[in-house]
Amino acid sequence: MGTLNVAILGSAAGGGVPQWNCRCPVCSLYWAGDGRVSARTQSSIALSADGERWLLINASPDLRQQILNNPVLQPRNGSRDSPIAAVALTNADVDHIAGLLVLRERQAFTVYATAKNHQILADNSIFNVLAADIVERSTMVMDEMFDTGLGLHIRPFTVPGKVALFMEQGNDVRIGDVSETTIGIEISAHGKRLVYIPGCAEISEKVRQIASGADLLLYDGTTFTDDEMPQLGLSQKTARRMGHTPITGSGGSLNAFDGLSIRQRAYIHINNTNPILIEGSDEHETIVAAGWTVTHDGMMFLL
Amino acid sequence: MGTLNVAILGSAAGGGVPQWNCRCPVCSLYWAGDGRVSARTQSSIALSADGERWLLINASPDLRQQILNNPVLQPRNGSRDSPIAAVALTNADVDHIAGLLVLRERQAFTVYATAKNHQILADNSIFNVLAADIVERSTMVMDEMFDTGLGLHIRPFTVPGKVALFMEQGNDVRIGDVSETTIGIEISAHGKRLVYIPGCAEISEKVRQIASGADLLLYDGTTFTDDEMPQLGLSQKTARRMGHTPITGSGGSLNAFDGLSIRQRAYIHINNTNPILIEGSDEHETIVAAGWTVTHDGMMFLL
Repeated sequence: MGTLNVAILGSAAGGGVPQWNCRCPVCSLYWAGDGRVSARTQSSIALSADGERWLLINASPDLRQQILNNPVLQPRNGSRDSPIAAVALTNADVDHIAGLLVLRERQAFTVYATAKNHQILADNSIFNVLAADIVERSTMVMDEMFDTGLGLHIRPFTVPGKVALFMEQGNDVRIGDVSETTIGIEISAHGKRLVYIPGCAEISEKVRQIASGADLLLYDGTTFTDDEMPQLGLSQKTARRMGHTPITGSGGSLNAFDGLSIRQRAYIHINNTNPILIEGSDEHETIVAAGWTVTHDGMMFLL
Repeated sequence: MGTLNVAILGSAAGGGVPQWNCRCPVCSLYWAGDGRVSARTQSSIALSADGERWLLINASPDLRQQILNNPVLQPRNGSRDSPIAAVALTNADVDHIAGLLVLRERQAFTVYATAKNHQILADNSIFNVLAADIVERSTMVMDEMFDTGLGLHIRPFTVPGKVALFMEQGNDVRIGDVSETTIGIEISAHGKRLVYIPGCAEISEKVRQIASGADLLLYDGTTFTDDEMPQLGLSQKTARRMGHTPITGSGGSLNAFDGLSIRQRAYIHINNTNPILIEGSDEHETIVAAGWTVTHDGMMFLL
């Protein structure tokens, strides 16, 4: 009986921890060298059913650094080689697609995305660095499970979300739209099941049903409170305006999955402003007490 | 009398050292933990006339990591801040523009590029993450010196080159075209002068004239020999086909600047296959004996 290997390549939301231009309380601790805050790269995970061939979910701008930090993703044979066999995208935000530019240099692999998100890649000629003759672009159909040929089965599903920031047109942005813009992904191997939802604007009954029975739920941990960014004076946008459920408060994720049978649950895609990133903080203790883990780069789950 | 500060953020060519999918002799030494090969991020430099405000030349995909490694580029005041005041581009290759995506999050700065390269940014909507209302896109006119307002004067100049890889149309690529696709940049402050040429297909008399009298020349060190990639079986492309002068052989850069008054000369934009990256190699000794330095990440020149 094999294991479903889940490597946390990056655990932070867009910008990473610290964010290049930020001096919020969490980033300021990092810049000051305070050991309670660890550096985190932008969210991405790698999965394998055999320990040899890996599927990435999302390709973060930090992917080159993540490969250098994770020996399982480094080339092993011949003159050009990679254990990275495929990349599946949950949306087309910069923090989830820019890493595709790292995967240039004529290496074969498959990109799985929704038709909408493939169109965004097609509309941006910079992604032509992925040679069309060897990099396959495969369209995922919602709610249909498919076999990746890697011993991993994938089932994509829509979640309430919003369009990528760079595709927003003015302030007329619908939040909570269920479209193929933002999705979650369920991965199965060896009878084990991971549910990966790095961005979700609302925990609908459908989201709860899919999470139910998972061996591991990796969920959107962007902010602790809905008004975290406005309170810090960093942005006028609430978590919901950015397409994310806050951890606490009305509709928060902290207790939204209670009562379901979920073996392990952990937050990922954590924004640099989120106080759960400070080891020993009240907020960190709160989520641990509620049964959640805070992911960090380099963490490995063996399911 | 102040100094012109030049920080080498990244010294490698596209892909960096090691390259994610490569097991050429240099990358293999790195993967094996051999101390003679140091990791290098993709080429970019930062310049300052006052030690406070910095101009980047090119924005590499590794820019987030480069900022974390270089305290002079980290935020100092208020809640959002950056010492990075401007970015000038020498071409629109992925290894020189992808880092612009790192500089999102509503921070004001200026992007200097040729009209052609601005058009490539405009045609790729992903760069809309740079908010149009605060990120100024300024067009550089060839051979005209201008004042950045940072105590740094810039003069861009065309060099023989080629279009960005992702803009190539089939095999019909003209090499050595002098257009505004690939440029060099001359920067002056405090009576000192840096000439920065990370990509150049041929050392023309114009290139030699501009380099003459420089306090520092940072020049295209992509490959040691013209047929380095084909010899290793990694690609059919010679250095010249990629738009670069090799270091040795006919038309090579090693002795092309001899006889000119240049205070310091160093290679940058060094491809992972280049044996000068192996400390103590014959090739490394050869270029040092000829008066060149191999740049490495974290190096600082005070002119």
